[in-house]
Amino acid sequence: MSEEKKIPVVIDCDPGHDDMMALVLAYGSGKLDIRAVTTVAGNNTISNTTNNALNVLHYIGADEIPVAMGYQDPIVRSHKESMDRLKARRPKPTNNSEKSRENTENITGASVHGITGLDGFTFPPDNPKKPESIRAVEMIARVVRESEAPITLIPTGPLTNIGLFIKAFPDLTHKIKRISLMGGTCEFILSRPFMEFNTFVDPEATKIVFESGIPITMFGYDVTYSVLYDRRTIDQIEAVGNQSSGMVKSLLDTFMVRHNSSLNHLKLKDSCPVHDACAVAGVIDPELITESKMIHVDIETSGTYFDGATVCDYVSALGLEPNVEVVYRMDNEKFLSMLVEAVRNCK
Amino acid sequence: MSEEKKIPVVIDCDPGHDDMMALVLAYGSGKLDIRAVTTVAGNNTISNTTNNALNVLHYIGADEIPVAMGYQDPIVRSHKESMDRLKARRPKPTNNSEKSRENTENITGASVHGITGLDGFTFPPDNPKKPESIRAVEMIARVVRESEAPITLIPTGPLTNIGLFIKAFPDLTHKIKRISLMGGTCEFILSRPFMEFNTFVDPEATKIVFESGIPITMFGYDVTYSVLYDRRTIDQIEAVGNQSSGMVKSLLDTFMVRHNSSLNHLKLKDSCPVHDACAVAGVIDPELITESKMIHVDIETSGTYFDGATVCDYVSALGLEPNVEVVYRMDNEKFLSMLVEAVRNCK
Amino acid sequence: MSEEKKIPVVIDCDPGHDDMMALVLAYGSGKLDIRAVTTVAGNNTISNTTNNALNVLHYIGADEIPVAMGYQDPIVRSHKESMDRLKARRPKPTNNSEKSRENTENITGASVHGITGLDGFTFPPDNPKKPESIRAVEMIARVVRESEAPITLIPTGPLTNIGLFIKAFPDLTHKIKRISLMGGTCEFILSRPFMEFNTFVDPEATKIVFESGIPITMFGYDVTYSVLYDRRTIDQIEAVGNQSSGMVKSLLDTFMVRHNSSLNHLKLKDSCPVHDACAVAGVIDPELITESKMIHVDIETSGTYFDGATVCDYVSALGLEPNVEVVYRMDNEKFLSMLVEAVRNCK
Amino acid sequence: MSEEKKIPVVIDCDPGHDDMMALVLAYGSGKLDIRAVTTVAGNNTISNTTNNALNVLHYIGADEIPVAMGYQDPIVRSHKESMDRLKARRPKPTNNSEKSRENTENITGASVHGITGLDGFTFPPDNPKKPESIRAVEMIARVVRESEAPITLIPTGPLTNIGLFIKAFPDLTHKIKRISLMGGTCEFILSRPFMEFNTFVDPEATKIVFESGIPITMFGYDVTYSVLYDRRTIDQIEAVGNQSSGMVKSLLDTFMVRHNSSLNHLKLKDSCPVHDACAVAGVIDPELITESKMIHVDIETSGTYFDGATVCDYVSALGLEPNVEVVYRMDNEKFLSMLVEAVRNCK
Repeated sequence: MSEEKKIPVVIDCDPGHDDMMALVLAYGSGKLDIRAVTTVAGNNTISNTTNNALNVLHYIGADEIPVAMGYQDPIVRSHKESMDRLKARRPKPTNNSEKSRENTENITGASVHGITGLDGFTFPPDNPKKPESIRAVEMIARVVRESEAPITLIPTGPLTNIGLFIKAFPDLTHKIKRISLMGGTCEFILSRPFMEFNTFVDPEATKIVFESGIPITMFGYDVTYSVLYDRRTIDQIEAVGNQSSGMVKSLLDTFMVRHNSSLNHLKLKDSCPVHDACAVAGVIDPELITESKMIHVDIETSGTYFDGATVCDYVSALGLEPNVEVVYRMDNEKFLSMLVEAVRNCK
Repeated sequence: MSEEKKIPVVIDCDPGHDDMMALVLAYGSGKLDIRAVTTVAGNNTISNTTNNALNVLHYIGADEIPVAMGYQDPIVRSHKESMDRLKARRPKPTNNSEKSRENTENITGASVHGITGLDGFTFPPDNPKKPESIRAVEMIARVVRESEAPITLIPTGPLTNIGLFIKAFPDLTHKIKRISLMGGTCEFILSRPFMEFNTFVDPEATKIVFESGIPITMFGYDVTYSVLYDRRTIDQIEAVGNQSSGMVKSLLDTFMVRHNSSLNHLKLKDSCPVHDACAVAGVIDPELITESKMIHVDIETSGTYFDGATVCDYVSALGLEPNVEVVYRMDNEKFLSMLVEAVRNCK
Repeated sequence: MSEEKKIPVVIDCDPGHDDMMALVLAYGSGKLDIRAVTTVAGNNTISNTTNNALNVLHYIGADEIPVAMGYQDPIVRSHKESMDRLKARRPKPTNNSEKSRENTENITGASVHGITGLDGFTFPPDNPKKPESIRAVEMIARVVRESEAPITLIPTGPLTNIGLFIKAFPDLTHKIKRISLMGGTCEFILSRPFMEFNTFVDPEATKIVFESGIPITMFGYDVTYSVLYDRRTIDQIEAVGNQSSGMVKSLLDTFMVRHNSSLNHLKLKDSCPVHDACAVAGVIDPELITESKMIHVDIETSGTYFDGATVCDYVSALGLEPNVEVVYRMDNEKFLSMLVEAVRNCK
Repeated sequence: MSEEKKIPVVIDCDPGHDDMMALVLAYGSGKLDIRAVTTVAGNNTISNTTNNALNVLHYIGADEIPVAMGYQDPIVRSHKESMDRLKARRPKPTNNSEKSRENTENITGASVHGITGLDGFTFPPDNPKKPESIRAVEMIARVVRESEAPITLIPTGPLTNIGLFIKAFPDLTHKIKRISLMGGTCEFILSRPFMEFNTFVDPEATKIVFESGIPITMFGYDVTYSVLYDRRTIDQIEAVGNQSSGMVKSLLDTFMVRHNSSLNHLKLKDSCPVHDACAVAGVIDPELITESKMIHVDIETSGTYFDGATVCDYVSALGLEPNVEVVYRMDNEKFLSMLVEAVRNCK
């Protein structure tokens, strides 16, 4: 496939294990022209998520993709405040206090992914790949402005950069073809306490995106928790046998253990979601989406319990114009095959 | 059954069609010793709900039950403000504007039940039954204090009176056996915009009740929308042929039409819930409850969209002590039979 | 003065040093018929404030006045949550960390008044005076109902009991002549962080009171910080030489030291307010009030910084009906003389 | 003075009469190198404020200054929502209903400045001056990046653009020398209902600015209401006799009438503030500032009454690091002379 036929995208992420999978899929698929990777604070601090993005891209052989770093905090709140809010919803100590404390620490976004944000694999030191001198929002603007074709944005972390871009560069939003985002949840509510991580971390940015008028496809917990990898997938990836496969295998292994231990009420056992990869897969092949619905989606930006929760009027009770295509089902088999295939095309 | 064996209760209600059914069931069942009926603003203004309670009790022959009137407003907010908040979530006008406006008006609690709160039947004028000189909260306190046996409270409207009673009479709460309430919702979320009416109207009162330590059984939308009457039930009630049966039949008829037209996204068609009667039925015969679960339930008291929504940690993610028995299923057939039988025992 | 000519009042308080002075003034003035003293959580826990009220009344020889205990928490919030909110506004640690920590602890309402709420004097153990079996709100209702003359309420703590009374006994509010309260602040803003303690602790109760339609005189920081006692007053009280004078002297001494050390930005040095006594003095002799204004006053019940702050439209920008007589100036000399004279009339 | 010695600034404004005066002063002073004028929604819609900025600059002969347009809304909220919030605090109708309605309309920021935002003078049609193709935030970034010397930002409207710039271009904030802003209020509270317009319109942007760590000088109502022009100033400006003087004279005339009629509780009569010009004057000659204080200033971003109010810990009760130089007094005579002199230097 010639470069011209590839779909031009910017991936805005906070790696994170599933962001890693999203990057591998995007690069290995051969179907996307990744004009830039931008980073955001979320699963970990901005310096760690940026470092992780650089490490992953270099390791899989994607050195040509520029990386631009975002801000240390959400638009209005601080990253620390978001993490504190998250911890406030932690399980209270029980008699089994050791275990309880462990769970407490694990429940933060940072901790599901470990201290570095990508625990489970040690990248070689002295990565020659460095972030660009310009920062994330400006990078998105530059890519969009310089492109003749409209750009698809794929945010897999909090929507901080996308929200800032929309507000700071109103002259460019008409050149965004679609935002294919991982975030939010409409009917899936087993994820309690009560909401999806990305919208929770930056509710105000989410509000800006949902109200922007730009076409949006939302891969929320509704679908991402029904598209799970398991031992078989990990084995297939390991069997690829190249440099990348070892790294991916190791990180998926670690993620499944951590994820299912932190969120043991979900009873996922030997399977695990790779949330962020869904938002990439949907751009590569929209036919993967087997069920979706246009819904009016908004976001709660205050309150004690629901601050950061998506508000999906899926019964059309409010009669408002649908603004988001909410994805409910994807072709699981095809999706997992795509992951394996993508690893094969990496270094 | 001798009076002593009856279960002593106070019913706190805001009739409302389903409150009417709750009163008929409580009185006609012969199993409850209704020490008082107290009224609250909710489905309609306090003067209308009080008037309706007096009318229903007199008409079914329950003149001996004292009625005490509550306050015109929720504890902290005003009734008008609650109704305005409710209207703000109305369907926006569409091209079919006439129909839209009708829906808009119907969606308020008041309007599901009509202008009087009990549209669909005209009670005889000059009801000799009058409210007591003391008011609702004091009446609850008096009944509880004077009773040797612990009292079961059955609130079927906003929890204003119950919350005030708990705070104003802390010396008496240990004599409350249980609060069997209609309100809230845990997993049923088709009721959007987003929450159950009673908890929506007085979130602060709900907070007081949930935090009180008193045993609570919650009949929320989770169960009340699965316990529906239909044409057959109405026919059976009509066939009873006494004075009350005509009134009940007429009001259930009207309610089904109004309810299903206002909330047409629920697609109930020829069936309809009688929410409040469930909370009474569960006291009469706890074996009606075929599925329930102890859950930690709290209430959101601020925010744009979720203010007034119950927060049910049904996956025990927070590890907090369960404080509410949430009812999920009841024996529908038995419940409907109880309704018909109760009408038969009325005047 | 015959008992019939005395002004019938209920004093609702949370002693507290200045509440002590308010009780001494009310009793010793000989002008008030104190039908009951009710207690509320605020300056300290409900059990300590109740204990302190009993101790003060017994010690000054006012055993005939019934005392009824309030609830452990504000209407909607918890006492602990209010204290935590208060601490969150504490000075941040500086290098001089010992001093800083001391300040931190002192800034809570509880700590300005010490661990017992009345630090600085040890009452004899085994006080024979006990609280009534009924609780505060019911006691207020009983006094009001049984009185032929309208009752003046004098709340000197958070408005929890008064708010509950208004909502639970709407049939009795027409018999309240006036609420003469200590609380709030309109123009005095040196009290930052940002608000007066009583309205801060129970904003929802304050809202109920301000919206009740009952005539209100508000003795807020605007006036109470301009009516100060000093060393001369303390000496005069000590010179009275009866049992009560020693207790009052000792407590005023302690309060001045603690108050001015906790709130050293006020630079009061050798003088100190006795906030609560002002609300009593204004009932005893309204001519003490040398400047006041009818203003529309409301209360902020949410927000990060201003939750609990009074909102005074003293420029009539909103054009709303004035609901509160805000007191700005009192005759300081006369007021202090009244205090000394009142001590003389105690045991 | 050579161009190199001039102070390089960007003026971010929402003209508005006082913004006009700020532009005239900045340009006519000859002391500032105005690298760009950027516009923001506030006193009027973004299209009107942009149009007004272009008109003023062209009319006074400042065609060389590039103008870049901002976004239509504050960062998180909508401009319409801000205006609605403002109207909600309008005087309620009185008997004198005509006058009341007029006041109601005038109290919005838009209406103090009239329908166009600059009522009182008709600029020639077909202004050849057009906004740049890039938008406000990018323009600020470009100026800052391309400048060797650090840039002083002078925002005289809501802080939307400045907040977005700080978040989107974190690599450039170290090159901001100072933000000299018109907005907020610390001790001046006659401006009620309760807060200054600019911080009210975009509280979240204000929060970003106050927390940015960039040096800030705040010209709020504390000082701007003590620096008033009057008839004498207007006459002096008219006497200048050039093209600009007629325009300025006419707009200051109109503003005084509108301002004092809308805010008649301020009783300003024949004098009037020119808020925004203060923030410019302070950059031109810091010695104009005769009293100021370093204070910790924050912003309330929620609540019913105080949402958008600045929180100034001027008694250092919180012990937080001062982040804002709050200006309390300026040399009024010198300031007014500067205005007249500036007009003389315009076309």
